[in-house]
Order: sequence, then C-alpha cells, then structure tokens
Amino acid sequence: MSRWAWGVEPDLDELRGIARMISGSDDFEEPVPFDRVRLPPPRLAVPEAWKEFAIGEARARAERTYGQAYRDLIRAYRGDFACAPDLVALPRTETEVEQVLEWATAQQVAVVPRGGGTSVVGGVEARFDGPAICLDLSRMDRVVEVDQVSRAALVQAGASGPALNAQLPGDLQLRFFPQSYEFSTLGGWIATRAGGHYASLHTHIDDLVESVRAITPAGVWESRRLPGSGAGPSPDRMLLGSEGTLGVITRAWVRLQRRPAHKLSASVRFASWERAVAAVRELSQSGLHPSNCRLLDAAEAQLAAGGDGEHAVLILGFESADHPVDAAMARALEIAGGEVGGVRQDKEWKGTFTRMPYFRNAFPGMGKVVETFETAVTWDRFPALHAAVMGAVDATCRFAFVYPDGPAPYYTVSLPAERGAEVAQWDALKARVSRILLDHGATITHHHAVGRDHRPYYDEQRPEPFALALRAAKDALDPAGVLNPGVLV
Amino acid sequence: MSRWAWGVEPDLDELRGIARMISGSDDFEEPVPFDRVRLPPPRLAVPEAWKEFAIGEARARAERTYGQAYRDLIRAYRGDFACAPDLVALPRTETEVEQVLEWATAQQVAVVPRGGGTSVVGGVEARFDGPAICLDLSRMDRVVEVDQVSRAALVQAGASGPALNAQLPGDLQLRFFPQSYEFSTLGGWIATRAGGHYASLHTHIDDLVESVRAITPAGVWESRRLPGSGAGPSPDRMLLGSEGTLGVITRAWVRLQRRPAHKLSASVRFASWERAVAAVRELSQSGLHPSNCRLLDAAEAQLAAGGDGEHAVLILGFESADHPVDAAMARALEIAGGEVGGVRQDKEWKGTFTRMPYFRNAFPGMGKVVETFETAVTWDRFPALHAAVMGAVDATCRFAFVYPDGPAPYYTVSLPAERGAEVAQWDALKARVSRILLDHGATITHHHAVGRDHRPYYDEQRPEPFALALRAAKDALDPAGVLNPGVLV
Repeated sequence: MSRWAWGVEPDLDELRGIARMISGSDDFEEPVPFDRVRLPPPRLAVPEAWKEFAIGEARARAERTYGQAYRDLIRAYRGDFACAPDLVALPRTETEVEQVLEWATAQQVAVVPRGGGTSVVGGVEARFDGPAICLDLSRMDRVVEVDQVSRAALVQAGASGPALNAQLPGDLQLRFFPQSYEFSTLGGWIATRAGGHYASLHTHIDDLVESVRAITPAGVWESRRLPGSGAGPSPDRMLLGSEGTLGVITRAWVRLQRRPAHKLSASVRFASWERAVAAVRELSQSGLHPSNCRLLDAAEAQLAAGGDGEHAVLILGFESADHPVDAAMARALEIAGGEVGGVRQDKEWKGTFTRMPYFRNAFPGMGKVVETFETAVTWDRFPALHAAVMGAVDATCRFAFVYPDGPAPYYTVSLPAERGAEVAQWDALKARVSRILLDHGATITHHHAVGRDHRPYYDEQRPEPFALALRAAKDALDPAGVLNPGVLV
Repeated sequence: MSRWAWGVEPDLDELRGIARMISGSDDFEEPVPFDRVRLPPPRLAVPEAWKEFAIGEARARAERTYGQAYRDLIRAYRGDFACAPDLVALPRTETEVEQVLEWATAQQVAVVPRGGGTSVVGGVEARFDGPAICLDLSRMDRVVEVDQVSRAALVQAGASGPALNAQLPGDLQLRFFPQSYEFSTLGGWIATRAGGHYASLHTHIDDLVESVRAITPAGVWESRRLPGSGAGPSPDRMLLGSEGTLGVITRAWVRLQRRPAHKLSASVRFASWERAVAAVRELSQSGLHPSNCRLLDAAEAQLAAGGDGEHAVLILGFESADHPVDAAMARALEIAGGEVGGVRQDKEWKGTFTRMPYFRNAFPGMGKVVETFETAVTWDRFPALHAAVMGAVDATCRFAFVYPDGPAPYYTVSLPAERGAEVAQWDALKARVSRILLDHGATITHHHAVGRDHRPYYDEQRPEPFALALRAAKDALDPAGVLNPGVLV
C-alpha cells in the first residue's frame, strides 16, 4: 500500500492526466517524497520476544499512520506523519495478539488495531499523546472452516474482501461489497458496522455475522455460533461497532450466500427529485427488498452514471440464487413510475464503484478538497434535512441504502483547495454539515463509523446513560485504557 | 388477570371438562382458594407520595407474584405466594416511574418491572431476599404518536398487543403476534427480545424497533429515531434483552406494516422427518422469506393440526401488502416436495395459536407437568441435538422460526405429575434438557428470555468478558442494584 494513496503507489503521470481531465489545468503539486517526510523517531523499540512479528522501520510506520479520509491523504501527501505509530505488530496468531495486549497493558502503551486501513473517520490514527503500537491484523487472513450445511464460514479478521471470497468453496460467497472491498477486512467491517452490497434488508455486516471472537485484555470473548437467540442483550451487537475499543476481533463466523443465478438491473429516470424520493420511499415499504436501490440526484447521475444533468436516476437491482426475479422487478418498476431505461440481465456497476477511490488520488495534487457525508434519517425528516444540506454546501446526493422508515442519504461535497490550508477547510466543512445532520435528527454516520472525526457529534447523539454503560464496559475489559484511545469512550 | 391462570379466573367446571377430555379421568384437584393462600405480610408500606398510583392490597400482590411458567402456575394453584411483591406500583407517567426508582435506590429496595406478566422463565418473580416493589407498567398503554410517512409509531411500554394495534390508524399494524399477544406488552417484548409473527426474516421484536426510551437510576436513556445507523454499538441492542436489569423501558418507536392484502397458506405432509427438515432447510436458504414456516413433527401435528400421527406437517404462509405471493408459494412448494394439502387464501391459525395457553390452565388440576424448551442451533448440529432431546425425554417438536443457518426448534414435554412434587419434577426436567441444549451448541433460549430459570445456563453460554462488561454497565446505571436482582447479572 502507498503511504498516502488508495492502493499501491500511484503513477504520478497518470494522476496528472486525471487531474487535467477533471480540472482542465496543468497545475499539479507532487507529493512530498519519502526521504523528506516528517516522521518522528520511534519512542518504542521492538520487544525482543516480538522480533518475528513486529517492525519499527520508518516506511512500515508511515504506511500505517493514516486511514483514507481526504484529511489523511492531504497530510500524508504533504509529508506530515507526526502521529505515526512507534512500532507495527503484524501478529500471525491469537497468541501473538495476546502478547501485544499484555505488554501494552503492563507498559500502558496504546494499541490501535488496524485491518485494511481504509477508515475515513480517523479510526486508525494515533491521534493522542504518548507512544502507539499499530496492531495490523493483515497476516491473519485465512478462512479456517466452512460449514456448507448451515452455509457459514469461520474467517480470520484480517481477510480482505477478495481474499475471503477466494478461499470460499464452490458457489458460496459472503456477498458483502463495500466500496472499500478491495482492501478492507472482515474485522474492520465488524468493528465499524460496515455497509455492504445490499441496498435493503441485510445492509450492514451486523446481519451476516453468526458469532465473533475477540481478544480483550480481560480474556477471550467468543460467542456461540447461533442462527438466532434471545438470551440477554446480544454479545455480538456489543462488539459490532466497538471500533477496537473493547477488544481485538480475531475471527468470526459469517453467513454465506450462493452466487446469484438470477440477476436483473434497470435504471429509471425522474424529472423531479421529489417524485423520485417518493418512489423510493414506496419501494422501500413494498417488501420487495431490491438488492440495489441507488437513487442518484441529477448532478450525481451526471458524474457517476452518464446522466444528462437534469434527471435523477434510480438504479434498481434484484438478485436471487433460487428463483427468477422478473416479477419483483416488474412490480418495482410499476411502483417507481418514471422513465424506465431498459432492464438488463446484469450490470457491472460494482467495478466502477470500487474504482472510484482511485480517482480521488488525484485530488491532493490538483487542489481539490472533498468529503462525503453519509447518514440515515426517517422519511418524515428527510426533506428538511436535504434542504438544509443542499442550502449550506455545494453537494451532490445519492441514496446508498433504503429502509422502510427512511433513506441513508450520501452527500459528496468538494471545494477548491486553499493550498496548505486543506485540513482546516476540511474540518470546517465537516463541522458545518455534521451540525446540520445532528440538528435534523439524522445519525452522524450510517456506515463510515465514528472514529475520531465524528466523536463530538457521536457524543451528542448517543443516550447519556448508554455512554456511562459503554465507558464502564470499556473500563472492565480494558482497565489500562490502551485500546484505541479517543475512540467512542 | 387470575392470580394463577392464563387470562381471567377460569371457570372450574370448564377446566374439569378439558381435563376429562385430555386424560379421560375425573381426577381433578381444585386450586387453593384465595382466603387460604400463604401470602407473607408486606414488608413495605405504600409511601405517602405514591398513594395515587401504588397499592399494597393482598389480591393485587398475589396477582403479580408470578409469571406464566408451569412452575409458576402450580405454586399459585397450591396457594404458595411466598415471594409476592410487598407493594405494587402502577405508574401513569414517567415521573412516577422515576419516583419509584429514586425511592427504591435510596432505600435499597428491589424493583421488578412487569408488563403483561407472561414470563415463562421466572423473569418477573421476586425470587430473592428482602422486600420488592412490583413496577407494573400496564397503565402506560397509549400510542402517543404515529408517523404515517415513515410508518412508525411511538408507543408506551405497557401497551398489550391488542391495545397497541387498536390504537393504530387505518391499515397500519405492528404485525407482531407472539403466543402471549393477548396480554404481553411492548416493553416486555423489548426487554425479553420476544419472537413474533414472522417465521423468517423479522423474527424478533429487535428488528421492528426504531428507538427505545428507558428510565434508569442514572437518568433517561433515549435513542434517536433512526432507520439505520453505524454510530458505535447500537444502544437499542443493549436494552433489547436487558430484562429489566438496566432500566425501565417506558416507550419505543416501532416500525409498522400495512395490513397484508395478499395472503396464501398451504400445508405439506412428509412421511419422513429427515426429509421434512431438509426441505425446511432449503426453504430457509432460498431467500423466499415465508411469513409462516412451521414444521410440526408427527406427534405435534396430531395434537395441534389434526395430523394422522405418522406424517410431519409443514405449514407455509406468505403475505404481502404490496404484491401477489402466488409465485413465492409455488416456488416454496416446489422446494418443499412432500404432499401438498391445498393452498388457501388465508388461514386462521393464529386464533388457535393464541388460545393454546388457556388449555394449560387445566394441567395443575388434572396432574400433568408440562414444559417447553425453545432454542436455536445451526443446521449442522441440529440432528445430534434432536436425537439427544428425543432420546432423553418424551417430547414433541416443532420449528417455530427458521434461519438460513439453522432452525429454532421448540420441544414440548409433559409428564404425569407426582402431586405435591411438581416443582421438583419441573426443575429436574428443566435441568436435564437445558444441559442437552448447552452441550449441543444450542442457545438456552431463542425467544423466552433468561429470567431466573435459565440463569445458570445463560452464564455458561455467554462469553465471560461480555459478562464482565454487562455487569460493569449494570453497576454504572443501577449502582444500588435494585433493578430485577438475580436476572442476567
């Protein structure tokens, strides 16, 4: 992975080309080369017992300093690695994870668990005082066991999307495709309650998890494999979204699906945004459960789906491994109304979707600040929220996920950069839109997690007694407070 | 409500008739009349400030001593009210709930929250030393607000199934029909993670809850109304299943459905139990999401559905407010194979289903001990579990809920009573079958909750660090430990 970009180190000429295509200008600033970055000397030496799985080398530290927020990209681009971890542990076994937690607890050194490092909320950055260990789970990436009868697999937390699916047998898949699919890991998905492939029904990884195993400073947390249970509050639901603060997720049983044999896709155009929203609301309440139900406003449709800049576009998809989906699609199109742009057997939108982050690599150089705001809100409150966001900033909007009681709108905002002041610009933008989300009854995050960037708004959103309970739980499991300090509690 | 029976005080002649019908005998023991029951004098006087909403009267205390386990019935039948609450608070407002919690915390007096009192796991019984207040929520039973756009309603926790639905407008319903529907309440459903009407997909109340409000000794816990969120571990999921130990749930926003316009029901007979199980497994993994998918073994089918005692019977149902369900039913029947017994427009199985508990009222008198064991287990482990249960006790089996990764089997066991020793018989039966469930990787409860009866098995089932976290959360919210002592933590 590049120390600053999405994916491996990008070719600068290619980025210049993308920048020119987008901006029409040759103005392009190059990233600070690695030999000139500001990386503080490590405050920790690799303990003797960890020699086989830990490193303190500068490049390894730099590559694991940040996540993938624009705020991260621009700092790395400019060579600022002030909050680099002091050493990187790459455990191969749970025993090695335990060794790290024991040592860190005894030494009171912070541990930041890391999967694919694709956090866009400052969730994997050592943004605190004192030394830090990056606990990189990427070597624990195996599918350990598959239960073909129950359609479930036991998978190590460090498995990325492609690694996980490649190890599954026959036509079984997880069918969970977040935009970060190429790099993000199962452990990261669980820790952050990631949103996946399905626009409705099983939207979050939460629903695909059968049991979770985590190493905490207070011992091993492993829930029973169960299809369903009513025995007390769900242990899994406490780890889901815990963002590395309660324990280090090392493996999980996940529910698998057969590869779909029946797939249909269609796009519908709407001259009126309000009509499009009403159609999607009715669809969300129909019980048809489309696997894809992405509504793009006219500007977003122009950028992402070849739209004319005047029509909103709804991309509908149904899939099944078991039965034809023609009747479901026909009924969905009937509900949608609008102008149907043809029904296809399949549509390879996922390729484009997962390539999008690569384009962003050109933004720091060309002087473009970008941020996305993803949220969820009930239908009754959506119009006021939407008007407020669109009135405050220059944004495009899409619905990434829809529920019977509300959509999950996703706003993309970009600004011309004031070179050198991008972090301040980004912070101001984040504060401005986040305030609007909170004031309109929306959530500070639907699937990007809280991290350090959303923390003030999260604190405001959650019930105060729940915060007390979570803090107490954290203190019981991690009495030294070494796990991902500053996140959630 | 009767002090011992399901529903209002039953007519004894009617019970004699039922007993004779079932046992063929006239042997019938009458319940100990109220003037001869053993009810200890109250250890608490009603505080002056609670005069308008609390009572210490003997009958009110007796009626709220137990839940509805057979273990409860038989004790009440025999006049044993040793663990009656010392006073009954019937708050009309959240302020009155707060008053009770404040006083109880200051005085270190236990509070047992109660909805419809239909717990079958000892969840609402003051089975501990020291005085107890029964906090009966039944007066807080209003639908406060309806959002027709997002299809959601704000409902007070004490609303029973019928009360809740009666207050909803037009064709909107909660569509959540547990067997206890007639008496159990929204707050109870949430506190115990009740299982409802849908055999697949939205099986538990968990999925129908948009936000929850609870009064805790540490303050008001209220989550935001959100269709979905990824902001940290879900606060609602911590209250779901908390069984009155973390706070008193006072109201919740729940998701509503339109009344189904399209309904189909069919029954399928199988000569082989194994083939029936395999068919249901394939159905559960088909993505068809039947609303009803009840598999009854041959003995259960004979008792409950007019079966011939040799064939297992699968009752399949599909419903939709939006679209015809014929294609789904046709495909389901194709998957099922077996011998199809006719497809009907509708089937009023729910009437019978919710009348079943009334029959049980005859058991204490006729000398019959009964208990049900409901669990969930992955498909790969089901055959061994089933063989072990059926080998150990004389049981009938049905699947009440099915998931892609496993069924939720429900076993009914009955024994001839050794009169006077029924509680010991029941306890021995509970221990024997619970041990089998735990040893075979199943859950101690799928939808009946933990209460006091399942507690030892629950402790064994849950991950130890989770128990630490839950205990810490409890201590933070309820430092005096007054909320439902002995349950969960």
